Amino acid sequence: MKVFREIKELKDYLKTERVKAAKERKFPKTGLVPTMGFLHEGHASLLRRARQNNDIVVLSIFVNPIQFGPNEDYDRYPRDEEKDLALAEREGVDAVFLPSVEEMYPRPTATKIRVEGLTDRLCGASRPGHFDGVTTVVGKLLHIVQPTNAYFGQKDAQQAAVIAQMAQDLNFDAEITPCPIVRESDGVALSSRNVYLSEEHRVAARVLSRSLLKLESEVQAGEGITAGEARNALTEAIQAEPLAVIDYVEIVHFPGLDSVEESTVLRDAEGSVLVALAVKFGTTRLIDNVILMKKGEVLHV
Amino acid sequence: MKVFREIKELKDYLKTERVKAAKERKFPKTGLVPTMGFLHEGHASLLRRARQNNDIVVLSIFVNPIQFGPNEDYDRYPRDEEKDLALAEREGVDAVFLPSVEEMYPRPTATKIRVEGLTDRLCGASRPGHFDGVTTVVGKLLHIVQPTNAYFGQKDAQQAAVIAQMAQDLNFDAEITPCPIVRESDGVALSSRNVYLSEEHRVAARVLSRSLLKLESEVQAGEGITAGEARNALTEAIQAEPLAVIDYVEIVHFPGLDSVEESTVLRDAEGSVLVALAVKFGTTRLIDNVILMKKGEVLHV
Repeated sequence: MKVFREIKELKDYLKTERVKAAKERKFPKTGLVPTMGFLHEGHASLLRRARQNNDIVVLSIFVNPIQFGPNEDYDRYPRDEEKDLALAEREGVDAVFLPSVEEMYPRPTATKIRVEGLTDRLCGASRPGHFDGVTTVVGKLLHIVQPTNAYFGQKDAQQAAVIAQMAQDLNFDAEITPCPIVRESDGVALSSRNVYLSEEHRVAARVLSRSLLKLESEVQAGEGITAGEARNALTEAIQAEPLAVIDYVEIVHFPGLDSVEESTVLRDAEGSVLVALAVKFGTTRLIDNVILMKKGEVLHV
Repeated sequence: MKVFREIKELKDYLKTERVKAAKERKFPKTGLVPTMGFLHEGHASLLRRARQNNDIVVLSIFVNPIQFGPNEDYDRYPRDEEKDLALAEREGVDAVFLPSVEEMYPRPTATKIRVEGLTDRLCGASRPGHFDGVTTVVGKLLHIVQPTNAYFGQKDAQQAAVIAQMAQDLNFDAEITPCPIVRESDGVALSSRNVYLSEEHRVAARVLSRSLLKLESEVQAGEGITAGEARNALTEAIQAEPLAVIDYVEIVHFPGLDSVEESTVLRDAEGSVLVALAVKFGTTRLIDNVILMKKGEVLHV
């Protein structure tokens, strides 16, 4: 496994690999998994998916300052390079890209990629500018790696929708593949930010997945729950947990992110429906979601 | 010469050409010349430059609606597909990309690429949103064609600076090459918009190149003209032409586009200096410029 800290080194490596393959009359597929590091089994599942479907797998680890707000957790965002490299090695990654902030932003970027509409709701409403930072850095990474496929976790469902919209609008060549949420045995969605939680908050946080998965199984069982009822039930369940402070509970179409009408029976809603929430436990803001799909429907952003 | 109206067709063609070359163990260079058509010798010079330095030359012709303001000339912008194709054929173009608006924007784009700072002055001040439209469509074209080199006319000096900044900030793989202005025998810079000019306006428009080239030769001859003096002299010369209405006359560093101080002697200014102007003749807005460079300096944006 190669580790690169400079853009030029990574590009040279990829070029060499591609030239080598072309000499054998092959046209290698490259899979990119962009992350902010502090890797967990959710990331590992993306790497495995990338490994299955590509000849070259690139993992990028970069805590991207421009997607954090001034009062957010950029400085204390958890980092563990050694552990990350061990996980990458175990998952058969070919190249890890670990740039410094100076390498990615030798000067403050004058250029931003911005997706309008999709970014002004859900997490975008409480994190202004966040998604501009995400789309800009993902655009940069797509240009540097030029992958055939890029993989994103569905825990950040809005992020996946925004990136897919960007890729479509700007004719990026890469296929954007969202991958299912990975959960702990108690249901809590894996997140690098879970490390911030006290034991008490960690237990309290179970309310998110518990209430989301309950709703999902009820809808799948054919119950005639409306969007309004579902939202109220989720809100009540979370409010019943004294340590939880709701940022939002939203029920929207996916990937368009426009609200599902209160009176719509979720079972009968057109297309996929995203039930998403953001809840604070102490100073830690967690997000979780389920995507309700029709039988046989494939998640496609 | 191939003509493509659909993105997929063009991409399939480029892939086939690249695979073919790779089978001969070659790695072809692709040159892209993005234009809005109604081609003239300025465009031809870009195509010749592209032909010299690349294996595959792609010309795109697309009058991009999102770079025109609501009161600008999108609807009447001149078009002549037959003549354009003849010129492209003559210059040895391999593939012409001639998409419809629906092909490039199947729905209004939610995504924009925006370069801050460089775009708020000169033409950006009188054409709000113009450069966002330019960078967005150029980003799309770069993704579709994936060129090694992309060529832009230096007549649109600010555009070249903005695109180079975008390419650098977002790590686009393509090399951005600006090419010198081509002028008519009377000095007027070639522009598709010259077709709008009445004979009287066309004669009056000579004042732009005449005064710019006079300044250039004075500075090259070693005269100690300051930026303030040069700006005044240009303004007076243009105001002496009754049909000319000045939009701006600016003297800025290139490619940073920050103003050169009034007291700076142009001969001694650091780096390249762009002397740029925009002037209306009737309803037609013309731009022209010279870039003052030190001896032996190479234009690099």
